[in-house]
Order: sequence, then structure tokens, then C-alpha cells
Amino acid sequence: MTLQQKTSIMLPSLEEELQRQIRRIDGIASQPFYEMLTYHMGWNGEQTVGSGAGKRIRPLLMLLVVEASGGQWLRAISAAAAIEIVHNFSLVHDDIEDDSPTRRGRVTVWKKFGVPMAVNVGDALFAIANQALLDSAAHYPAGTVLRAAVSLDHACIELTRGQYLDMSYENGRHISEDDYWPMVDGKTAALLSASAEIGAILGGADDEALHYYSDFARHLGMAFQVRDDILGIWGDESATGKSAASDLTEGKNSLPILYGIGRNGAFARRWSASPITAHETSAVAQLLKDEGAFDYSVEQAEKLTELAMASLRAANPQGDAGDALAELARKLLNRKS
Amino acid sequence: MTLQQKTSIMLPSLEEELQRQIRRIDGIASQPFYEMLTYHMGWNGEQTVGSGAGKRIRPLLMLLVVEASGGQWLRAISAAAAIEIVHNFSLVHDDIEDDSPTRRGRVTVWKKFGVPMAVNVGDALFAIANQALLDSAAHYPAGTVLRAAVSLDHACIELTRGQYLDMSYENGRHISEDDYWPMVDGKTAALLSASAEIGAILGGADDEALHYYSDFARHLGMAFQVRDDILGIWGDESATGKSAASDLTEGKNSLPILYGIGRNGAFARRWSASPITAHETSAVAQLLKDEGAFDYSVEQAEKLTELAMASLRAANPQGDAGDALAELARKLLNRKS
Repeated sequence: MTLQQKTSIMLPSLEEELQRQIRRIDGIASQPFYEMLTYHMGWNGEQTVGSGAGKRIRPLLMLLVVEASGGQWLRAISAAAAIEIVHNFSLVHDDIEDDSPTRRGRVTVWKKFGVPMAVNVGDALFAIANQALLDSAAHYPAGTVLRAAVSLDHACIELTRGQYLDMSYENGRHISEDDYWPMVDGKTAALLSASAEIGAILGGADDEALHYYSDFARHLGMAFQVRDDILGIWGDESATGKSAASDLTEGKNSLPILYGIGRNGAFARRWSASPITAHETSAVAQLLKDEGAFDYSVEQAEKLTELAMASLRAANPQGDAGDALAELARKLLNRKS
Repeated sequence: MTLQQKTSIMLPSLEEELQRQIRRIDGIASQPFYEMLTYHMGWNGEQTVGSGAGKRIRPLLMLLVVEASGGQWLRAISAAAAIEIVHNFSLVHDDIEDDSPTRRGRVTVWKKFGVPMAVNVGDALFAIANQALLDSAAHYPAGTVLRAAVSLDHACIELTRGQYLDMSYENGRHISEDDYWPMVDGKTAALLSASAEIGAILGGADDEALHYYSDFARHLGMAFQVRDDILGIWGDESATGKSAASDLTEGKNSLPILYGIGRNGAFARRWSASPITAHETSAVAQLLKDEGAFDYSVEQAEKLTELAMASLRAANPQGDAGDALAELARKLLNRKS
């Protein structure tokens, strides 16, 4: 079975479970609150068809690891919902923290309902996610659920640390490439790693396989982020849907930019002089490329991709879920948008 | 042993455990982040002596219930830290949501570090609290820890629902006394109730006693809130430390005010006309008293206090921890400040 076929079987059950979990907040007096949560999830409000909902990469990864470890993916559906809800909690709060007016082509929760409501919407999603994970006790021994919960909570702590690093760097601290990796580890890799780790725990993988699955997803997350950074400067605007080179004007802590700063050449001088304006982006992107930032970043992404794929092979995933995992990784890393 | 003696034994262990838990976020790059958390906890920054830290009522309640149920309180210290950290997470976010510049006589986290950092500080505290609870697995069977985690997460969901109701009422929705009780249940009673419930779970209480402990703490929380509302209008300014009648000028959703609105008399007319100014507060407080709001609120507080004490007796708490629990309840409900 291909990834496409696996996805078409798993996603409907996941969506149903997500809706069941979010419904915890429903009630007569709190119905408008419930609707704020479902708005963020893409189930109501403008542009709900496709673009509103996320790609569900983390829960898919988890369910595939469960099956590739010899477990039954449907039993892990509450845990898969938990990881997707944690991801969405972090998006709601990140949008406040980054002052982002839109997400997935729609107005963000804070922009639509105000910051106070949005802080509380994120908190509710976080609390629901924890409860969703504990629902796994219906299908797994308590000790297994506890191990999964420890993994999820650990990733949540790393998320907040990564977010802190990102904000502190944006506040103008002197920053180098050394600061990049711990930030990406917290912001992107930790939750992907936990998705795979929880999948391995629930699928009954041994400790060695669990370790490799976790490494696979961590490297996958980092490779994905580096590719995202490359697209953020040299991406095809028509494919990414956002203005290419926008990372330059937004002053993002991206790998090519940090590499360029580290070169201490013409780019670094231009960068430290004043913010890059929109009409300069092509020239500055070319300058950065000339100094080797593009090649360096591609090289890093390839190295991380190799590490990810080697870890996946070492985990020895079984059956067509194993094939689908490799396909998911390739799809994530070769994407043009 | 009196409450005072119990407290002096339990609090140092609790403080040590709180510090150990919060230290999870420490690290070379994230040290300033760690210091934001410890600032909120009252361990550094201005006015750290006494006033900076909270009263630790929830963890004390939990530890006393553990012992009164026949368990060993020291084994429950991570769970007690968890409930106090959840309380503090909610304070950090409430201060953002309510636009409050000070707390416990100190500048709030969002006012000191900005809203983006404060949102993330609250999230980190929430994640640490979850992890702290799971640390209980060192001393209890996995199934017991899971039950405690379910209770904590349930309270967190109720917290966000209560906070939503409070904000939605402040946004000018037509509101009556019927709206008051679910709001207080979520904002104040749910976490106190979970504190007692988790204490009963960890202390090994049977289901009946657990139910009574939970009811005790829920009613205690509601009685406490009603007393707080009474003090917020007719309190002794020198004892409460805040301007009496400030609830009138701030337009708070307090029981006496909602009672007055429901009377549909002179107070309700004055209330709906325009915000109460500082120089009117004495006169409006007297008007509200004349319409029976003071007597009604005192009556409600007494009814809830009786329910709380009856539930506590029904839980049949053992030993001097049982006596200390009753003393804690009396102290909370008779306070003048």
C-alpha cells in the first residue's frame, strides 16, 4: 500500500478523533469558545476547504511508526490526535508571539478574537491534548501510557525553549549558526521526534528501534526546517505561495542568513547596516548565494536527510507502513512548496 | 499538630521540589528564560521576601488530604508541586488576559518581559507541571499516576472554560447570577477540587471518601470566592491591601453586583448607565447593601462553607492532618484579607 492509500485510510479516523477530543470544550455557555477552537482547526469560518486544516504530518508519522513497529494504528488514534492538538496549541500561541496576522491563508485566532481569547484558546488546546493522550489507557497498559505522556510533555518543554530562543534572537541578540540548531531542535524537531517515539512506544518497538525512530524524526524535522529556510530565500514564489526572499525582509533566524553573517563579508555588512527592503531582496539573495550560503544549506539539508534515512533503515520498519514512512520522509524533503 | 506546625514541615520540601521542577527549563542558552519563570515564582527580582511567592494553598491542601487519607505526604510532593505550577501558569496567562500590571505587589511577567515572552513563560510552566505530576511514578503505581493526571488535566480544561466565561461576560454580554456559578466553578473551584481529589487518589482513599474530599474543596473554593467578592466591595481597605469597592469601579463579575443587577432597582439602573467612578464607590456600595446584596452574599458564603465542612466530615479525615484540613478551611473562610 502506498503512502497515499495509507493516508486515505488513517486520516478520516484521525479527523473524527480530533473532533471528538475538541468537543470536550463544548457546552451551553461555552459554545462560542468551542467555535474559536474549531475555527483554528479549520472546521468553520472562511476558507474551510482544505486550506484551513493542517497536513497532519505528525499524527500520520506516529500512526505509521505504530504499524511499522508491529502495532495496530487505530488503537493509537487518541495519541495521534494529542500530538496534532499540541502542534495546534503551539501555532495559536506562536501566532500571538510572532504577531502573525494570517496562517494557512486565514486570519489567525488572535487577530480574529483578540489576544486574551487566543491565549486561552491555546491553553484549552494544550489541556485537551494532554487529556487525549491519557485516553490511550483504553487500549494500552498504564505504564505504556505514562511513557508516552512523559515523551509528549518533554517535547512541550522543548517547544517552549525553542520558542524562547527564537524570540530572544529576534530581540537583537548577537547570534551565530551555533544558536540555530538548538532553536530548530526545540521549535521543529522535538515534536516530530516525540511523534515517532510515542509511535514506537505504542507499537511495542524495543528500546533500540525506539531510539532510531526518534533520531529519524528529529533529523527529518531539522532537514525539513533547513529546506524551508532555503525556500524562504530562493524558493519559487508561485510554488511556496509566499513571497520568496521574505525571510530576508523579515529578518528571520534562518540557516542561510546565519551562515552569511558568519562569513563576515559583503552580506554581513549589508545585513548589519539596516533591514532589507522588498526591492533589494533579489540582489541580496544573489549576494548570499555568491558567498556560498545556498550550497552550504543544501549540503546541510542533504546530510540531515541522509542521517534521517539511515536512522529509519536502522529502525527496521516492517511492512507497507515502513515503505510509507520512507515515502513520507522523501515527500517532505523533496517538496517544492 | 496544628496547621502551623504541619505547614512548617511541609512547605520547605514543597519549595525545594518546586525549584527542582522549574529547573527543567534551565540551560546555557535558555538561562534568561529560566529567570523569567523564577521571577514569576517570586524567587528573584524585586520584593522577593514573602510577598513574591504565593500562599501555596492548593499543594498544602493536597498534602494534608494525602496524610488524612492514610498516605505519606512526602511521596506526593511532585504532584503537589504540579498543582502549584498549574496555578502559576494560569496566573501568568490571566494577567495577560486581564491586562493586570501587578500581582502580589510586583510587576507582572507580561508587563516586565512583554506579552510574547509571557505567553511562552506560561506555556513552559504548564508543560513543567504535567511533567512534575508524571514524576509521581517514582512512588506510585502507573495506574494511580494516570488517575491523578486525568484529574489534573480535567481541572485545566475547566480553568480555560471558566476564564472564557469571565472574559465573555466582561465583553458586555448580558449576564445574570446563573452565569456566576459556572464561571467560579471553572476559575477557582476546579483546581482546588482537583488538589483534594489527587490527594485522595495518592493517599489511597476509597471512592466515597474521594468524592467527599473533592466536594469539600469545590465548595471551599466557591465559598472563598464569594467572600473575596464581598471583601472586594465592603472589605477593609487596610486589611485587603487593595482599594475596597474596586470591584465596583472595575466592573467585575462578582456575586453582589450580579445580585444587584438581578434586583432591577436603583443599583441596576445606576450600573447600566455608565461605569462607576472612584468617588462614587461608597455611595454605590451602600446602595447595593440597602438592596440586600451584602446579606445575600454572606448567606451564600455561609451555605457553601457549611456544605464544605459537612463534606469534609463525611470524608472522615484521619489524625492531625484531618484537624489541620479543617483549620485550613476555617482560616481561608474567616480571613479578613
